[in-house]
Amino acid sequence: MLTYEDFPVGEVLPMGPKTVTEAEMIAFAEKYDPQPFHTDPESDMATGVGGLIASGWHTCGIMMRMICDAYLLDSASMGAPGLDEVRWLLPVRPGDILTGTTTVLDRRISNSRPTLGLLTLQYELQNQKGETVMLTKGTGMMATKEGVAA
Amino acid sequence: MLTYEDFPVGEVLPMGPKTVTEAEMIAFAEKYDPQPFHTDPESDMATGVGGLIASGWHTCGIMMRMICDAYLLDSASMGAPGLDEVRWLLPVRPGDILTGTTTVLDRRISNSRPTLGLLTLQYELQNQKGETVMLTKGTGMMATKEGVAA
Repeated sequence: MLTYEDFPVGEVLPMGPKTVTEAEMIAFAEKYDPQPFHTDPESDMATGVGGLIASGWHTCGIMMRMICDAYLLDSASMGAPGLDEVRWLLPVRPGDILTGTTTVLDRRISNSRPTLGLLTLQYELQNQKGETVMLTKGTGMMATKEGVAA
Repeated sequence: MLTYEDFPVGEVLPMGPKTVTEAEMIAFAEKYDPQPFHTDPESDMATGVGGLIASGWHTCGIMMRMICDAYLLDSASMGAPGLDEVRWLLPVRPGDILTGTTTVLDRRISNSRPTLGLLTLQYELQNQKGETVMLTKGTGMMATKEGVAA
């Protein structure tokens, strides 16, 4: 199991690939973000922006699943208090193949809990053209080896 | 249809209520965030934190739907470039009834597009005990009346 010690500053963890389907985009948007450019490729709003676009929140969900599959489910993660930045830079379209990285920007041990590490992480997603479609930064909590053994 | 002019600084728009079900929490998490404390109430990870907790990304999705239903689907929204802050302050649990507000913190007309308004918005969600469970801030793009007429 990966612990705080396995995430040194500068570490870059690859994620994906994940193909985004139109059906999945529409299913997510109908439930959580039913704006026409997310739900209906024939709508005026969608055709006005070059076709269906994934909800930014759907892209966040896809990113989270890529993080889980890349390393988080095999780690001593203790959750996350939030994010400091979310940037939806380019539209995600049906058929896009997303890959990404998690980069460890900084880290420290919690002042109040010596077995808890705090990782400052940057997450990026690229499409099949190599364009960055989303960028986020946030804090992840990760137990130390000593914390896992306790 | 609501336009930029309908969102003065200081405006507070109510959202919800929305009841969060265990089935919905698990369905979201199995697809997008399959950490055991989000997917399995009987798991050691869930019992260790007092029971099943909604994925923070699921709470974001619920918030987005509450925003859509409260005002966004009846507005001249042009999307959003991202968020500057996402804070998951307290766990969201099965059966929680969420309400919330969107507050207009600031606004201005785009320098490059005089028919496009930029709203600085704060979103908050509370549970049935009145506790704030999530807080986010970001920018929303909204056409002006002139932009809609054009």
